[in-house]
Amino acid sequence: MITIYSLCGKDDIHYSPHVWKVIMALHHKGLSFDVVPVDFSTIRDIEGGAFNSVPVLRDGDRVIGDSFEICTYLDAAYPDAPALFAGAGSEAQVRFLESYCLTALHPPLAVIAVMAMHDIMHPGDQAYFRAKREERFGVSIEALAETAPAERARLQERLAPVRAVLTHHHWLAGDAPAMADYVVFSALQWCWVVGLRDLLSPDDSVAQWFSRCQALFGGAAQKPAGAPRGA
Amino acid sequence: MITIYSLCGKDDIHYSPHVWKVIMALHHKGLSFDVVPVDFSTIRDIEGGAFNSVPVLRDGDRVIGDSFEICTYLDAAYPDAPALFAGAGSEAQVRFLESYCLTALHPPLAVIAVMAMHDIMHPGDQAYFRAKREERFGVSIEALAETAPAERARLQERLAPVRAVLTHHHWLAGDAPAMADYVVFSALQWCWVVGLRDLLSPDDSVAQWFSRCQALFGGAAQKPAGAPRGA
Repeated sequence: MITIYSLCGKDDIHYSPHVWKVIMALHHKGLSFDVVPVDFSTIRDIEGGAFNSVPVLRDGDRVIGDSFEICTYLDAAYPDAPALFAGAGSEAQVRFLESYCLTALHPPLAVIAVMAMHDIMHPGDQAYFRAKREERFGVSIEALAETAPAERARLQERLAPVRAVLTHHHWLAGDAPAMADYVVFSALQWCWVVGLRDLLSPDDSVAQWFSRCQALFGGAAQKPAGAPRGA
Repeated sequence: MITIYSLCGKDDIHYSPHVWKVIMALHHKGLSFDVVPVDFSTIRDIEGGAFNSVPVLRDGDRVIGDSFEICTYLDAAYPDAPALFAGAGSEAQVRFLESYCLTALHPPLAVIAVMAMHDIMHPGDQAYFRAKREERFGVSIEALAETAPAERARLQERLAPVRAVLTHHHWLAGDAPAMADYVVFSALQWCWVVGLRDLLSPDDSVAQWFSRCQALFGGAAQKPAGAPRGA
């Protein structure tokens, strides 16, 4: 049985984009799994204290703590299940997309989503989150949230390469969804689960692709709150 | 015989990144070709006036005028030569990278390279280039060039996804160079050919990969001035 540890807010909302990459990967491979919720104060208790971030995956005796490492492990450990990566070129593509998400999408999303994230957190996490964000940005999270309109405009520009692919292909991975899609999807899913549903215009090809991703695996990512349990 | 039309400055310097994509693609496929230099005033004369930008490629009766279309044509027309793309996933990867170059790399590079580009152009093109750039940016090209240090810093940040791939792979296409590499290489080669050789620190993995790209095909892209003639 596979277990993943996931940062969780009120109402069972799993909001870490890095955890969502692994949730989508596990569904893609058709593997059953349980999700164990943690919060900022209990991350340090995961598997004896070896980790300071999620996701962490346990599969039997194996414990792995980085979303990319987890996904390459899943392809190696379950070679007969559908592949997440199609060789070295595909791995290189996903490495690029992961860094693009971290450096181009996450900065605007972190501002756009700051109050919604705060509001779905447990009270103890709210205080920790506020302190860390105010330290990073040098202003109150309320003041930070006031800059969201400019960040929403910046997000639209930053999504241009995703749109360029979707003009010619149904999926970022090409003919069928795979890890390339799940990496970028998870950045947007993070904001969707905390309640931001208006980041994209409905006629935007990115919005339509996002809906296609959410509909995969029996709509596993369509639940307003919470990661699906099991495949 | 294949002919490509290329924007050319003094001393036979071919400086269009879009032309370089096609030059690298033709070498990759081992095809012989001739390069016909044009300048801004003669682009409109190419092949009877059907095009307003380069590259344009003629192969027998076929004339094609977009670098991506040219490269997919080359794979289709010469299927026995080494492939530029490895299927739909690879095409999707290159579409993403092409848009990433246009939206993330070209804006800082256009500022960093503005005076060097101007200085290698023929006098007639210099006047046209100055007018177009000053219209776009609203300042003289000399004033624009003074903002280059900030754009150099921005370029380093924008290259993060390229570095993320090169930490794990020798080439952006994975195990061997292909179109994914040539697309990003050509953006940096544009600045290299006009004389900017210090954009990257020598210990930067991007600099080392750029050198590996330049060394391909017998060092076809290592000549300080000019596109190679023939394969």
